[in-house]
Amino acid sequence: MTDFNGEILVVGDGGWGTALACLVAANGRSAVIWSYDPDYAALMQRSRSNPKFLPGVELPPAVAVTSDPGRAFARAALVVFAVPTKYARSVLDRLAPAYNGAPVLSASKGIEPDSLLTNSALVRERWSPPAIAVVSGPSHAEEVARGKPTTVVVAGPDTGFIAAVQRLLSNDRFRAYTNPDTVGVEIAGALKNVIAIAAGISDGMDLGDNAKSALITRGLAEMRRLGVAMGAIPDTFAGLAGMGDLITTCISPFGRNRRVGLELGRGRKLSDILASMEMVAEGITTTRAAVRLAERHRVEMPICYEVHRVLFEDKPPRRALLDLMTRSLKSELEDAGGER
Amino acid sequence: MTDFNGEILVVGDGGWGTALACLVAANGRSAVIWSYDPDYAALMQRSRSNPKFLPGVELPPAVAVTSDPGRAFARAALVVFAVPTKYARSVLDRLAPAYNGAPVLSASKGIEPDSLLTNSALVRERWSPPAIAVVSGPSHAEEVARGKPTTVVVAGPDTGFIAAVQRLLSNDRFRAYTNPDTVGVEIAGALKNVIAIAAGISDGMDLGDNAKSALITRGLAEMRRLGVAMGAIPDTFAGLAGMGDLITTCISPFGRNRRVGLELGRGRKLSDILASMEMVAEGITTTRAAVRLAERHRVEMPICYEVHRVLFEDKPPRRALLDLMTRSLKSELEDAGGER
Repeated sequence: MTDFNGEILVVGDGGWGTALACLVAANGRSAVIWSYDPDYAALMQRSRSNPKFLPGVELPPAVAVTSDPGRAFARAALVVFAVPTKYARSVLDRLAPAYNGAPVLSASKGIEPDSLLTNSALVRERWSPPAIAVVSGPSHAEEVARGKPTTVVVAGPDTGFIAAVQRLLSNDRFRAYTNPDTVGVEIAGALKNVIAIAAGISDGMDLGDNAKSALITRGLAEMRRLGVAMGAIPDTFAGLAGMGDLITTCISPFGRNRRVGLELGRGRKLSDILASMEMVAEGITTTRAAVRLAERHRVEMPICYEVHRVLFEDKPPRRALLDLMTRSLKSELEDAGGER
Repeated sequence: MTDFNGEILVVGDGGWGTALACLVAANGRSAVIWSYDPDYAALMQRSRSNPKFLPGVELPPAVAVTSDPGRAFARAALVVFAVPTKYARSVLDRLAPAYNGAPVLSASKGIEPDSLLTNSALVRERWSPPAIAVVSGPSHAEEVARGKPTTVVVAGPDTGFIAAVQRLLSNDRFRAYTNPDTVGVEIAGALKNVIAIAAGISDGMDLGDNAKSALITRGLAEMRRLGVAMGAIPDTFAGLAGMGDLITTCISPFGRNRRVGLELGRGRKLSDILASMEMVAEGITTTRAAVRLAERHRVEMPICYEVHRVLFEDKPPRRALLDLMTRSLKSELEDAGGER
């Protein structure tokens, strides 16, 4: 309990950040959630809940909510940065004057489409924290908040820091494992949202579990290809932050990215789908980044490319998935241990 | 079409064999299904259906059904052996006098618990066919029969033979890929049924998608560990016959093994569950074999061991899964690329 002397500050009022605040509170720590929206912060503080992003979960007394940067950082011993990639840079810059130099745990999954920075790299660039780690794994916020057994990976270069984060988060229902492979964990965490859109499209077209499993399998193969080209450890992709998180994201009814794909597969337009969603489907932004990274590192990523065409080039999902099934399966020949 | 001059004989009246018979018929070939039960063979032939094991699917005119071994082998150019492991030896011996020396495609997934032979090894031992291959992958019979897109792997040492099988099975909705790694494909195909029982237990206890994904991820790791100890290619487990088939089996509502686990997780007794099932849940038999193989090859397989305790040692599923979550996740430290 002496690892972080002070409060745990969660930056961002989303479901995952809120679940992590509840988790550290359950572990005996005080937490404060910072929301950019004063009205919503007040509503959360008053109602002891996060009705938009984590409905039905009561905030424990040890969790406070504020929109005041000064209050947020006043006693912060660790910053959990849980802001969608889309807003990450502006939030980091807005909070920079108040940032107190505490170490940072990045809890968002995504890649900034212009800079191609992962969230931890972006935090490092904007805040230069003394230590930084990322948390990832099969961990739907709704299940974590309801005390369902969950396992995650905490990755970072500083072994002392990631061990301290591991102790902070772990309890008998939530287990954190450490991994030195930040790049692999972040690439896997970001790209799985793109594959989840593809899996959702397959579900929306009612193609069945055989096709969906093939898509998930091929999806992990292309995630690993890119990760390894960027310096990741291949086995990270066979672990909880790779395969584990990908499966949860592709099968869970909670998944926002899968749901976007599902509606696309049923024939709805992206703009209509987005207009009806409160939450950010991170995979939409990540798809742009994935395609640019694939080009930069000269890696074949047929699923990411087809999702890009559906999202941004008006390609009919049916056509994309047909092309995908054919092409991506052809490419299995080259990289999967002797299959041809 | 000149690869196999004659009929395709499917030995076994189960759902998967029937779906394969319908598939080759759709590809322009004549097929004959052999059932050990004269009454059921007559019912299938008359009703043009397999009401017990593939309800709602009409048998095409090019599919005949017989219980007469002489008729079955009369024009057989390829034998698709699709008998559950439990009955495989007795069926092989019963048909041995009629067996005409045609090459064999093994379509069953399992390991004989006493001999520890895979199905293809058992066929080789009893019949000594001139060529043998196995077919595996994410391929629920119900979806194949309904024309949903499906991909499989055809594995065997004889490249000319597996290429001919690939041509026989493939069409625009069913794609077969070849792989030289028979051991890996058969071990993966057998063991995934044990992991599916574990996944079902997790579902039956309503532990959520986070826990289930962790279980599937750890399950594949222990499948791969055993396979590699037995000479398999590690990448086979990341492919369609490994990860792909495992995911389908663990998420599909059709899965018999997952259903056994589901009922166990809800507190029903194994004997009651089995009494109410028409079909064979192959994973029950395979669990015994898996534990013996783990001992022989000195490989840690905590999930298979806990499933064994639940099935055969009356261990309460809740207790087993608790022990499992703890223990199996500890062992991730040792084998998964730097996680500790």
